[in-house]
Amino acid sequence: MQGVTFLGFDVFGTVVDWRSSVARDLRPFLQRHGLGRLDPAHVADEWREMYQPSMEVIRKGEREWTRLSVLHRENLEAVLRRHELDPRRLADDELADLTRVWERLDPWPDSVLGLTRLKRRFAIGTLSNGNVSLMMWLAKYGGLPWDVIAGAEPTRSYKPQPETYLGSAELLGLAPEQCALVAAHNDDLKSAQACGFKTAFISRVTEHGAGQTKDLGAEGAWDVVAADLVDLAEGLGC
Amino acid sequence: MQGVTFLGFDVFGTVVDWRSSVARDLRPFLQRHGLGRLDPAHVADEWREMYQPSMEVIRKGEREWTRLSVLHRENLEAVLRRHELDPRRLADDELADLTRVWERLDPWPDSVLGLTRLKRRFAIGTLSNGNVSLMMWLAKYGGLPWDVIAGAEPTRSYKPQPETYLGSAELLGLAPEQCALVAAHNDDLKSAQACGFKTAFISRVTEHGAGQTKDLGAEGAWDVVAADLVDLAEGLGC
Repeated sequence: MQGVTFLGFDVFGTVVDWRSSVARDLRPFLQRHGLGRLDPAHVADEWREMYQPSMEVIRKGEREWTRLSVLHRENLEAVLRRHELDPRRLADDELADLTRVWERLDPWPDSVLGLTRLKRRFAIGTLSNGNVSLMMWLAKYGGLPWDVIAGAEPTRSYKPQPETYLGSAELLGLAPEQCALVAAHNDDLKSAQACGFKTAFISRVTEHGAGQTKDLGAEGAWDVVAADLVDLAEGLGC
Repeated sequence: MQGVTFLGFDVFGTVVDWRSSVARDLRPFLQRHGLGRLDPAHVADEWREMYQPSMEVIRKGEREWTRLSVLHRENLEAVLRRHELDPRRLADDELADLTRVWERLDPWPDSVLGLTRLKRRFAIGTLSNGNVSLMMWLAKYGGLPWDVIAGAEPTRSYKPQPETYLGSAELLGLAPEQCALVAAHNDDLKSAQACGFKTAFISRVTEHGAGQTKDLGAEGAWDVVAADLVDLAEGLGC
């Protein structure tokens, strides 16, 4: 990681445990609305499965740039309709609050300590598809000590578009090789590496629950591989 | 300040003491280059006096949007030429490093504690004309615990253009009345108030040195007036 001054982090899955946090807030909501028979973790998966397709129309230029918080709300409504709950019959406040569960995602147990240590030696920031306000409230919720919010909104692009990585480096006045992406997802790292970023893989083997089959280990020639963010800090001498 | 969730801060002068910090780094530079007879604080003032005119051509649309760090470098070179030091005869690294003194400005003694307390109850961020990387390194230098960097670069405008205030609110998904500007400058507060922001004045009576004549006190109907940032936190029950 010689010459690296900025660590950009994937956030959903890498820094925070979105699945159990979303399920936690979905449970009482589903019960209130006669859907208590559904597994909230499964509904969380359904909500998250709409994430990539909803960004893809924007990446393709078929829809103008739209913040992830807006996509989250639309995708929630689609999931509810799939379960025959008409979102038009619910209070806007209730849907808005549930959508904001993405600002109330618990950090993995090592995240705050790991980031705090890494921040001593590096500038650290989000390199996420989450929009600025979502990232800001999420950081306040979990105590994530970011120096900066980079990624999708400042670059008006969605990973894995090269603009998201390259525009984040440019925002910080850095060359790509002065930046590293830290992620628990091999495909994200592959895209960052193609842009000239250094790469650090960390393992999050329960991001998708106990039966996870993807991203169980490093699948590329990453510059650093670590068990978690504290281990990464350790490995980088922080 | 009822209903306010975000405090946006003017930074140069309000949170950090730019004049003595710039003078501190100018002193050895001027001595090295045969300009030891000059008062470094006076040269700092000359450098800063070019700040508004250099942004004004951009506000007027006579120049495309350009980061403050670039303007700082250009303005430094102009000041040196005025004192008959040809910047083309100096190493680029030396000029680049001196320009980055704007990332090494000391916080006022109350700033870090005040911000840390205000951050408990509010989202806090920069609402400065400084660009994102400048604000980020400045925060790391002084330990300023920002939640977000708003202001000029995310909105591609320079205060007091309404876009800087309104675009910062919009970036955070907030209405103007949910935002307050904290500043030691009455004109900045006036512009923010015209955009619907709440306003908090704090006193920085030595920003321009011992003989300061401007902004010695509140000159408008500001929502809050405080002695410094700790006093502001106190007044807002943080």
